[in-house]
Amino acid sequence: MRLERKMEAKESGKLSEAYPMKSGDGPYSYAKTSVSQKVVIDFTKQLMNKEVGEKLDIGFSSSSPPEVFSIADLGCSVGPNTFSAVENIIEAVELKFETLGLTSIKPEFQVFFNDHTSNDFNMLFKSLPPNRRYYAAGVPGSFYGRIFPEASLHFVHSSFAVHWLSQVPEEVMDKSSPAWNKGRVYFSNSRDEVIKAYKDQHQNDMEAFFKARAEEVVCGGLMILIILGIADGIHPSESGGHRGFDLIGSCLMDMVEKGTVSEEKFDSFNIPTYLMSPHEFEEAVKRNGSFTAERIQVLPHVKVNGASLTAQQVTNCVRSTLGELIKQHFGEEIVDELFDLYLKKVEEVHPSSIAEADKTLSFLAVLKRN
Amino acid sequence: MRLERKMEAKESGKLSEAYPMKSGDGPYSYAKTSVSQKVVIDFTKQLMNKEVGEKLDIGFSSSSPPEVFSIADLGCSVGPNTFSAVENIIEAVELKFETLGLTSIKPEFQVFFNDHTSNDFNMLFKSLPPNRRYYAAGVPGSFYGRIFPEASLHFVHSSFAVHWLSQVPEEVMDKSSPAWNKGRVYFSNSRDEVIKAYKDQHQNDMEAFFKARAEEVVCGGLMILIILGIADGIHPSESGGHRGFDLIGSCLMDMVEKGTVSEEKFDSFNIPTYLMSPHEFEEAVKRNGSFTAERIQVLPHVKVNGASLTAQQVTNCVRSTLGELIKQHFGEEIVDELFDLYLKKVEEVHPSSIAEADKTLSFLAVLKRN
Repeated sequence: MRLERKMEAKESGKLSEAYPMKSGDGPYSYAKTSVSQKVVIDFTKQLMNKEVGEKLDIGFSSSSPPEVFSIADLGCSVGPNTFSAVENIIEAVELKFETLGLTSIKPEFQVFFNDHTSNDFNMLFKSLPPNRRYYAAGVPGSFYGRIFPEASLHFVHSSFAVHWLSQVPEEVMDKSSPAWNKGRVYFSNSRDEVIKAYKDQHQNDMEAFFKARAEEVVCGGLMILIILGIADGIHPSESGGHRGFDLIGSCLMDMVEKGTVSEEKFDSFNIPTYLMSPHEFEEAVKRNGSFTAERIQVLPHVKVNGASLTAQQVTNCVRSTLGELIKQHFGEEIVDELFDLYLKKVEEVHPSSIAEADKTLSFLAVLKRN
Repeated sequence: MRLERKMEAKESGKLSEAYPMKSGDGPYSYAKTSVSQKVVIDFTKQLMNKEVGEKLDIGFSSSSPPEVFSIADLGCSVGPNTFSAVENIIEAVELKFETLGLTSIKPEFQVFFNDHTSNDFNMLFKSLPPNRRYYAAGVPGSFYGRIFPEASLHFVHSSFAVHWLSQVPEEVMDKSSPAWNKGRVYFSNSRDEVIKAYKDQHQNDMEAFFKARAEEVVCGGLMILIILGIADGIHPSESGGHRGFDLIGSCLMDMVEKGTVSEEKFDSFNIPTYLMSPHEFEEAVKRNGSFTAERIQVLPHVKVNGASLTAQQVTNCVRSTLGELIKQHFGEEIVDELFDLYLKKVEEVHPSSIAEADKTLSFLAVLKRN
């Protein structure tokens, strides 16, 4: 579900200086994408054992636990975080089998790594841990539709992916609509009609997401989602990323005035994300009705080595997230200029004010299929 | 299992003139790779309905047929032939359900496309038929080992893939071994020790192949393999490809003499294929013991539009098959020169004598898991 996936210097296994987070996916915060994603995954590990131990309920009571335990990671990108998450899940499930005294039954694990068809699956496959204790498969396609057979998954995981909408809401690109988002690239500080269009798109996407998962996950199976969102009570107009996204809008506007970007191209560009609050998420779960929210927990704010981010780090992070989207819409030739401009604008304000002073948060949800 | 996968001009969906068969995999015969592969798949379609109708036996009698029917195509390359094969299998299985009057039960299909990790899965995923009636997954890894959970497959298909060995036999690269294959790139017309090393490698590979499949395929499940082989009674030394492969060896030798290729590099290069006879295949099935050969049938010789191949077509075909292997071993810089030389040598002999006058054939095997 990451919009930017190809990592530089993949042969050497190192990330290049220029794109330290190319495979990350947070909308603007470097600390909230890969680095913090790792921190979050480590944090979730502790929870995983507890939740799997207490909540996972797939045939254990009828003493017919599955011989093949199927796990899906939705929006997996290219790794390595997806591999850590999967490893934690498997450990927790094996522990559960042991705790229940099912020592003679050793389930085999099949792990489905899902992301958009445009994800770099070649790279994902090449970086699969060599001594993994599961059978790996890649599944291309949007998780807003069915991508697995009925009742074929025991565990679904997704980390920092469901804040991406399935598409930009159509109305915001429609010149004849009151929701036309002229002069902006996001709904923050925009008209109510624009906000509503984004909100509706998000609701439709959540509906599609839960409908598909309800069909795919076995009864008693678990879904653990780690979600980039906003605090309860924050108006969507003030929602996360608005300062970073507004800055992108402002840079693009400068480029329109300079003539580097056409006004039409600018007006037709909108960022397809929506950050929901824990409350909005809970409502979506209830509307669907097939899952019970066993836990919804706001995650502690993560600092990277205790320090604020430099302007360059903030810029790199935004570029890693939105670079591909911008390239697809405007063409590769504007990307360098745009982010040079962006860097200057970030330097003008204190970068940490963009990276930290917003109202975004991450929360974790544990859902059980009824 | 194809050694060359990336197709030129993939954006346009067309193959370039220079590499018409880049994703093909026959050892040298263009007619026997993609074009004939399509012909063979169409031919097998007729057989498919019959074999699935009569032989597939997965819970139908106990009136608990599977809700999810799992198909794997081993050595799938990048398509489109793999998609045609899968479509034929699904049609045959649906027909079987209908024939048995199981009209209320409509199984869902999950298809696993397998090939080496170095296969271009990105391209495969992008070219998946948009209106497919199955859930698609890619599975990276060698089919000479376990790549699926136990008893998780109902149908295995593989077309023109199992003639690739898992590796070059070690002895033929060992200077201290009597099987050292100095001055040659293949075992044809080579010493008995070299032939034996290839034969042993092939036997080990077949053993590993059937052992893994026996664990992965459910009882009563089917395996249909289309195999590039040689006629019964042909000595391996005379086996298919020897003329084309010998010509590669001869070109490389010329380049050693010219100084373009080092003798050491040349001596350490060997082509990892082995063409087996239907009889050898049957013996391997029996040695394993988990499958019953329901049918082993030599396929009719395929002509492409009734015509012989030009020298250029023969060369392109060999390049599409071995180009990547040669590039990996010798470096990209020698590939053009090598195949220019190859073309000249093919022009010296009548090209059809290489493409047609050998003793290779294709055969189809239908195996049922006991």
